[in-house]
Amino acid sequence: MTELFSFELKRQDKAARTGVITTPRGQIRTPAFMPVGTGATVKAMFPEDVAATGADIILGNTYHLMLRPGAERVAKLGGLHRFMHWEKPILTDSGGYQVMSLAKLRRITEEGVTFQSHIDGATIHLTPERAIEVQCLLGADIQMVLDECTPFPATREEAKRSLDLSMRWAERSKAAFARLGAPGQALFGIVQGSTYPDLREQSARALMEIGFPGYAVGGLAVGEGQQSMLDMVEVTTAVLPEDRPRYLMGVGTPEDLLGAIARGIDMFDCVMPTRSGRHCQAFTWSGRLNLRNARHAEDTRPLDAESQCPAAQYSRAYLHHLVKSGETLGAMLLSYANVQFYQELMARSREAIAQGRFAAFAEDVLRRYQSGGED
Amino acid sequence: MTELFSFELKRQDKAARTGVITTPRGQIRTPAFMPVGTGATVKAMFPEDVAATGADIILGNTYHLMLRPGAERVAKLGGLHRFMHWEKPILTDSGGYQVMSLAKLRRITEEGVTFQSHIDGATIHLTPERAIEVQCLLGADIQMVLDECTPFPATREEAKRSLDLSMRWAERSKAAFARLGAPGQALFGIVQGSTYPDLREQSARALMEIGFPGYAVGGLAVGEGQQSMLDMVEVTTAVLPEDRPRYLMGVGTPEDLLGAIARGIDMFDCVMPTRSGRHCQAFTWSGRLNLRNARHAEDTRPLDAESQCPAAQYSRAYLHHLVKSGETLGAMLLSYANVQFYQELMARSREAIAQGRFAAFAEDVLRRYQSGGED
Ligand SMILES: [Zn+2]
Ligand SMILES: [Zn+2]
Repeated sequence: MTELFSFELKRQDKAARTGVITTPRGQIRTPAFMPVGTGATVKAMFPEDVAATGADIILGNTYHLMLRPGAERVAKLGGLHRFMHWEKPILTDSGGYQVMSLAKLRRITEEGVTFQSHIDGATIHLTPERAIEVQCLLGADIQMVLDECTPFPATREEAKRSLDLSMRWAERSKAAFARLGAPGQALFGIVQGSTYPDLREQSARALMEIGFPGYAVGGLAVGEGQQSMLDMVEVTTAVLPEDRPRYLMGVGTPEDLLGAIARGIDMFDCVMPTRSGRHCQAFTWSGRLNLRNARHAEDTRPLDAESQCPAAQYSRAYLHHLVKSGETLGAMLLSYANVQFYQELMARSREAIAQGRFAAFAEDVLRRYQSGGED
Repeated sequence: MTELFSFELKRQDKAARTGVITTPRGQIRTPAFMPVGTGATVKAMFPEDVAATGADIILGNTYHLMLRPGAERVAKLGGLHRFMHWEKPILTDSGGYQVMSLAKLRRITEEGVTFQSHIDGATIHLTPERAIEVQCLLGADIQMVLDECTPFPATREEAKRSLDLSMRWAERSKAAFARLGAPGQALFGIVQGSTYPDLREQSARALMEIGFPGYAVGGLAVGEGQQSMLDMVEVTTAVLPEDRPRYLMGVGTPEDLLGAIARGIDMFDCVMPTRSGRHCQAFTWSGRLNLRNARHAEDTRPLDAESQCPAAQYSRAYLHHLVKSGETLGAMLLSYANVQFYQELMARSREAIAQGRFAAFAEDVLRRYQSGGED
């Protein structure tokens, strides 16, 4: 398995890193951004276009897929890759985060979590073992341990209790994965610990003791604020081993990504580019744009002349017209252009790190985002 | 102008015809199906994909575009083609039909029609002259005279009165087009007359007297039923000149199209492939499918193995999942596959006519649609 799944660190620029994860389904250049394909679709995008943006990997949501169409059904249909026409790697989360944010009547015990589906109210029992079973049925290349995403704010005691449970679940997840995982698939551990630096460190060390081919930083972007988030990332990456990929879950804005890359993160996922695209927001190299704004009504300039994305070549006037009219094509074009922007941000970050000029690059992008934007 | 816009009839097979319309923006192979791009977008489709289906021309709605974003604005932004990234020909209707079906408080006088916008309630006055002005501002390659789409049912007297008004408007439209039209653009007349064969004939002759480079059959598919519609088509095409294209407005199902081609129609438009696509319906070479139907949930067969469309290669199980989940990608894929089916139906019709076997071809398709379908 170590031969089939591997991580090669190519270059460091202070704490920022660039490298390559190798999987049987292809390589993932890091820093990598994973578009979110919640229900077996990156919303409002053709899979070919997701690939064309430069995405090497996408994320699928275990919670959504186990409810609909169901993990056993996806397996019967040939697995998630085949089902959704995406042949490159897929990472699945473990469902823990969505159980907290979407499900009703959830109850956590040592054994696992019981909840009601937000779709049909069915009662579902999710254990560390079942979370791995589901991810294996989906055929995910990178799988995540079941954890409890500690709610924010949490007292130190609450955070510690939650973290300890997550560490016991991580151990059970690894044991289940050893039985069920296929060659070349990898299971990542997830660091918790809320906003307590010592708990973060303790969690990272506990996971390293169990041993994983990659480590995620979870339980952030839940309301703690950007500075606190970045502080926790810094504390955590300082402890994690250099030779394993590090994944910051559910983050975030372009500013967040640059800050986290500077602190040694290699992988990201976030619904922001697609969700924003469905809500008339564009990420461009000259900052954020709100296409509903009337000032775009007669602006013949392309959405983003600096972008390589075909969708970014449409005029702002046309995009304004589409979003004002509620046309699906508006969401299609903005989702495409936004995902491409995120991929170009990663590509330029990788290049800047390789050339030892990441700090200057990040500063330049941040300046554009602070001056040129609207919201 | 006659040199820039022309129609060449290549082959007849009984009353069915195949030919080519030449315009400065490209050729249109007939029989032709025009996907409807109501508000400057063929709903839920990228313009590149509309072209990839084999569409040589699309339709734009004057009524919608004059209300939003406005014809003067489109002209200022470089015209409709540039605005919506579609460089091939565009036909615009005159707005008459939508005024009847969508606008509020409409009042028709000899001068024109006054109505309230269904978007913001603004009072708008549309005359034959303004309808042509708007279409010229949009830059439409084929334009339509303003007419009154006679409501169904209509007494003979109502139909006659309405038809006479439409003929006077046709004459005024032609005069306005002579002043405003650009070289290579063409204005088509529209035959009315409800379900009265003698009025249809009278209308066709009145328009031929005025003289147009193409003739449309309007006021059908408004509730009269398929047989009555096809009867009116037959009566009308028998009178129309052979050397001008004939366009049946707003029709229809695959069965309707085959019936109208057999009666000498060359051009069609209809929202059906895109609207059905947004409502979980697929047109395939084995008949209609309703993708919401649970029997597709584990069907790994492609939507339509016989179709050349990339979208038709997705499994029925996946499409079922997408439409059940309300995912935009479901509408995107079904709209694409449906428009492609309509284009393939036209391509195969052209080939069958060229080979003198249209009747047998149409019979085969109808048999598939009567046996294989579900609704
Ligand atoms: Zn996020
Ligand atoms: Zn129609």
